[in-house]
Amino acid sequence: MSKITFLGGGSFGSALAVLLAEKDNVVNIYDRDKNVVNEINIKRTNEKYMKDFAIPKGVTAFNSIEEAIDGADYIVLSVPSHVIRSMCIAIKGKISRDIPIISIAKGIEEDTDKRLSVVIEEELDNPVVVLSGPSHAEEVVMKIPTTIVSTSKEMKFATDIQDLFMTPYFRVYTNDDIIGVEVGGAVKNVIALAAGVIDGLGYGDNTKAALLTRGMKEISRVGIALGGRAETFYGLTGMGDLIVTCTSMHSRNRRAGLLIGKGMSLEDALKEVGMVVEGVKACRAFYQLKERIGISMPITDGLYKGLFEGKNAKSIIDELMNRDKKSELF
Amino acid sequence: MSKITFLGGGSFGSALAVLLAEKDNVVNIYDRDKNVVNEINIKRTNEKYMKDFAIPKGVTAFNSIEEAIDGADYIVLSVPSHVIRSMCIAIKGKISRDIPIISIAKGIEEDTDKRLSVVIEEELDNPVVVLSGPSHAEEVVMKIPTTIVSTSKEMKFATDIQDLFMTPYFRVYTNDDIIGVEVGGAVKNVIALAAGVIDGLGYGDNTKAALLTRGMKEISRVGIALGGRAETFYGLTGMGDLIVTCTSMHSRNRRAGLLIGKGMSLEDALKEVGMVVEGVKACRAFYQLKERIGISMPITDGLYKGLFEGKNAKSIIDELMNRDKKSELF
Repeated sequence: MSKITFLGGGSFGSALAVLLAEKDNVVNIYDRDKNVVNEINIKRTNEKYMKDFAIPKGVTAFNSIEEAIDGADYIVLSVPSHVIRSMCIAIKGKISRDIPIISIAKGIEEDTDKRLSVVIEEELDNPVVVLSGPSHAEEVVMKIPTTIVSTSKEMKFATDIQDLFMTPYFRVYTNDDIIGVEVGGAVKNVIALAAGVIDGLGYGDNTKAALLTRGMKEISRVGIALGGRAETFYGLTGMGDLIVTCTSMHSRNRRAGLLIGKGMSLEDALKEVGMVVEGVKACRAFYQLKERIGISMPITDGLYKGLFEGKNAKSIIDELMNRDKKSELF
Repeated sequence: MSKITFLGGGSFGSALAVLLAEKDNVVNIYDRDKNVVNEINIKRTNEKYMKDFAIPKGVTAFNSIEEAIDGADYIVLSVPSHVIRSMCIAIKGKISRDIPIISIAKGIEEDTDKRLSVVIEEELDNPVVVLSGPSHAEEVVMKIPTTIVSTSKEMKFATDIQDLFMTPYFRVYTNDDIIGVEVGGAVKNVIALAAGVIDGLGYGDNTKAALLTRGMKEISRVGIALGGRAETFYGLTGMGDLIVTCTSMHSRNRRAGLLIGKGMSLEDALKEVGMVVEGVKACRAFYQLKERIGISMPITDGLYKGLFEGKNAKSIIDELMNRDKKSELF
């Protein structure tokens, strides 16, 4: 039995909190929203993120970070990517250095283009483990068979976290390529947003399969340039997560893209989805990165021009389809 | 303007026939079913395979192979994989040796485990070109943006076929790895069938994404063992086609799997789908192959035991989820 604190009561964090509590651990959730805290503690639900799912007794919510992290053996950063740094600063000096920090957000820090584990390491001296993979929260709470990957710079921590989370319906693999896992998880949201646009435009399964396949080449190209390994991108955290994100209505990235493809403005689409859409920030970050390091990412490029320069979505697809005929391998 | 003969009036063949006729080619279709021939020539429809889609004037159907192939510049073998050899034997000696034979079926010859281009080469001295990729016929006829790959032992023929089929909505790439294209296209039907079973069992997007990702490893493992290249399996003809097959209701393989997952017998499921389900034959062929050459294909293995040895589908998934914990890269 361990004590695990989740900083952030969003959907995936809450789903993992329930999983750990059902494995007889003590689980704390910190959330900045008092209503969420009260709802979890009194009504035993978290309606915004988990609908009417019943949260077990082993989970306690706090509105104070200090109270939530008191005595924790593990800390899970379950906030969106743009809040990771400030959350690390908030717990700096308040936790023992040997407590593993588990990162479950998928993104890249805007302006610095840093991977989230790098951001955490800049602020804290603790070991960092990344959990990533095709794991929609809505299905994890329903105990639908799910796979995920645990990675760290030091594999003993990744293996420890594998044991902590493994259940008969939640299969945790390890992978020692932390760069590949984090970059793949961040770029796939860009491609998922583009896949949503394709759906919104009314194109078909053929078009989306082509986009995903060519999108995998972009993920792999930028990921290898940043130091990741090809086999990671084609594993659960890259391709697997891309597939689940692009085919499921649970995905906020896909839903946002769908609305944009149907003609809604970016601003209105984000308002409609109502939760953080990581792919939008990631699109801007990877567009700037590819310009700087000089690699070809035609889908990211097209999406960027559609999102931020007002270019017509259909004309972007037409351009992608009508480039010079070529071999598929380049 | 060229004259192209399709041997077989199924859905994908008919869709490509329409595409070529709209590019001002002369197109003949041979079909063994007189009713299909009459329907195409008189009503200008092919209801079984293309619903109420109107077939343009440039397409003529024949009930005689000899009449259909007369004067053809290209011949497309648009029959299921198990009919390829007999169709080649039927035209042997009746066509000039320089006419390219275009193969669009996806499968492997049962009992011999031969790729379809090898079967064709054994019977005919003509150049063989394979067209393969994520291209559901139902969307091709609707001019939905689609990509496909043209491959041959001699690339000048692949490039010629690229030009023949390319349109603004139908983008043809070339790839010189004919082994990889054919093996990927055949094995993906096995994984698609398994994905259908997952859906039929009521599992979720997380489970299916895991299956597809681990399925790609099987495709790549057997494909490399047979002489194909990894980058081909992760391209349009492997991964792209797998995605479209596993996520679309247009796929017969997925539909058959879905029915089996819901508890229907293999025999009844095949009757219900009513068209050839290539994944069933491919499952048997690749199961035998993997046993013979000694490679690990746990999904193919599980599916085989479910289809042909009466093993319970749910227990197969449970076993796959509960193997020893491991790294995802092995």
